[in-house]
Amino acid sequence: MMDQKLHNFIENQQKLIDEELIAGIKELKIPTNLSESMKYSLEAGGKRIRPMLIQSVLNDFGKSHADALKVGAAVEMIHTYSLIHDDLPSMDDDDFRRGKPTNHKVYGEAVAILAGDALLTYSFGVLARMDNIEAELKLELISLLSETAGAEGMVGGQIMDLEGESKQLSLQELEQIHLHKTGELLRFSIEAGAILAEISQEERLILREYAVHIGLAFQIQDDILDITGTMEQLGKTAGKDVISEKSTYPSLLTLTGAQEKLQQHHDKALEALGRLSLQDDMLRRFADYIVNRAN
Amino acid sequence: MMDQKLHNFIENQQKLIDEELIAGIKELKIPTNLSESMKYSLEAGGKRIRPMLIQSVLNDFGKSHADALKVGAAVEMIHTYSLIHDDLPSMDDDDFRRGKPTNHKVYGEAVAILAGDALLTYSFGVLARMDNIEAELKLELISLLSETAGAEGMVGGQIMDLEGESKQLSLQELEQIHLHKTGELLRFSIEAGAILAEISQEERLILREYAVHIGLAFQIQDDILDITGTMEQLGKTAGKDVISEKSTYPSLLTLTGAQEKLQQHHDKALEALGRLSLQDDMLRRFADYIVNRAN
Repeated sequence: MMDQKLHNFIENQQKLIDEELIAGIKELKIPTNLSESMKYSLEAGGKRIRPMLIQSVLNDFGKSHADALKVGAAVEMIHTYSLIHDDLPSMDDDDFRRGKPTNHKVYGEAVAILAGDALLTYSFGVLARMDNIEAELKLELISLLSETAGAEGMVGGQIMDLEGESKQLSLQELEQIHLHKTGELLRFSIEAGAILAEISQEERLILREYAVHIGLAFQIQDDILDITGTMEQLGKTAGKDVISEKSTYPSLLTLTGAQEKLQQHHDKALEALGRLSLQDDMLRRFADYIVNRAN
Repeated sequence: MMDQKLHNFIENQQKLIDEELIAGIKELKIPTNLSESMKYSLEAGGKRIRPMLIQSVLNDFGKSHADALKVGAAVEMIHTYSLIHDDLPSMDDDDFRRGKPTNHKVYGEAVAILAGDALLTYSFGVLARMDNIEAELKLELISLLSETAGAEGMVGGQIMDLEGESKQLSLQELEQIHLHKTGELLRFSIEAGAILAEISQEERLILREYAVHIGLAFQIQDDILDITGTMEQLGKTAGKDVISEKSTYPSLLTLTGAQEKLQQHHDKALEALGRLSLQDDMLRRFADYIVNRAN
């Protein structure tokens, strides 16, 4: 489902980000239980899409940055903490994530909550201590991460999601949830790439459009896979949305309607990229992958 | 129990920090439920000791700083989030805090966890966006807050506390818990004051000694009040430590031994201050207050 060039790029990036993530935790002098719990979720086989998007922006603008991996590690820590907290019994109450028992099933709820808190707190320290970037840009990244990961971004989206569970949502409400719950952190990654690449404000705004559309496309494909995928493919319980009667793109638009919507967002993402002078096509390949992925 | 000069100073500071905290939340465009939950705990009548320590350092060195309230708001948000998460059923399972129902008793566990996450995330944005301080100092504050609030600091201390609940602790183990769980964030406040006052590294190290001793003194007095105080005085259930057979200073040292230890830390805190050329005595008055406080 993934073309070879993107596959190689991702595989290469995944290895580097995995090393960066674990190196960061290893140097901490902390209780064993806490570091084990943090590592467990960091090593649970995430796709590392967010760090990969940062590198893709740099790559497509013909740039590289010595601190890109650190920024990637920071956003991946935020993503990981959010999964740990989302899986808790009082939230989505999930026993499995990526085919493995969720953090609280292994370490208990208290340690899972604290491991999440620790990852969240650490991510800002990682950004503050980077070596190869000027102070003003570091502060811009920290401010952007706080905004996109916090109450106005991801955390706010999770609240909207919880509140929306028990009622029939409109398409607009569903979009608002996803724009916040998953979209904002993808926007961070894309904009972080733009900050590191030091491209123009105009180019950055176009990339933001791209981020919105791949974010929504990603979520629509998630909803579609929940219907068409198997537990083996997904690494988590399939069909959960249907059973819980949760509002999803297929439930609001039918499966065909959701697939059309997915294609529209894909096309708009490519249209945005078309307005940029890029030296490579990793962001385009990534948009294609989102539409075609099976897990 | 509190002398008039300290009383006036605290009352004045509390008002300013309360306004700063609520102004910060008010400007956020977020779901009502989330902002109500965040505000509920921020307004629950904390003593604002951490922001007050920042101002006390500045005051005693004859300085002031236009961003001191922002730094105070940031550390108070961290403190508040930690209380929300500590009170959860899977942690300390507390129904009351400062005489009011705990956050999760009012808003439910899911919203309480997310309100904590949001406060934690927001605090770093507050620091990153300050206007009256140079970039390098902001980054030093962000790095210090990440370190003292995170896995190596407060969160690590909470893990140690949970692990220590079921066993008999040595005095050294008990000290390690408190140095991390409460001591590190007090250290942040004192060092943040030192950073804002731009005092020498040597003076900062002496203040760090002061921070360690008032932190331990504070905790010992907490343990003593749990035995000698009433629910009315404390705003929470008294005698809880004894009932849960938790290791405390009085349980390890007897009540008299704990009172002696309290006095020793108080004296060492004052001894550290004696090595500094200070223009006022708010830090000294604060150390006295810790020993004499009834809640």
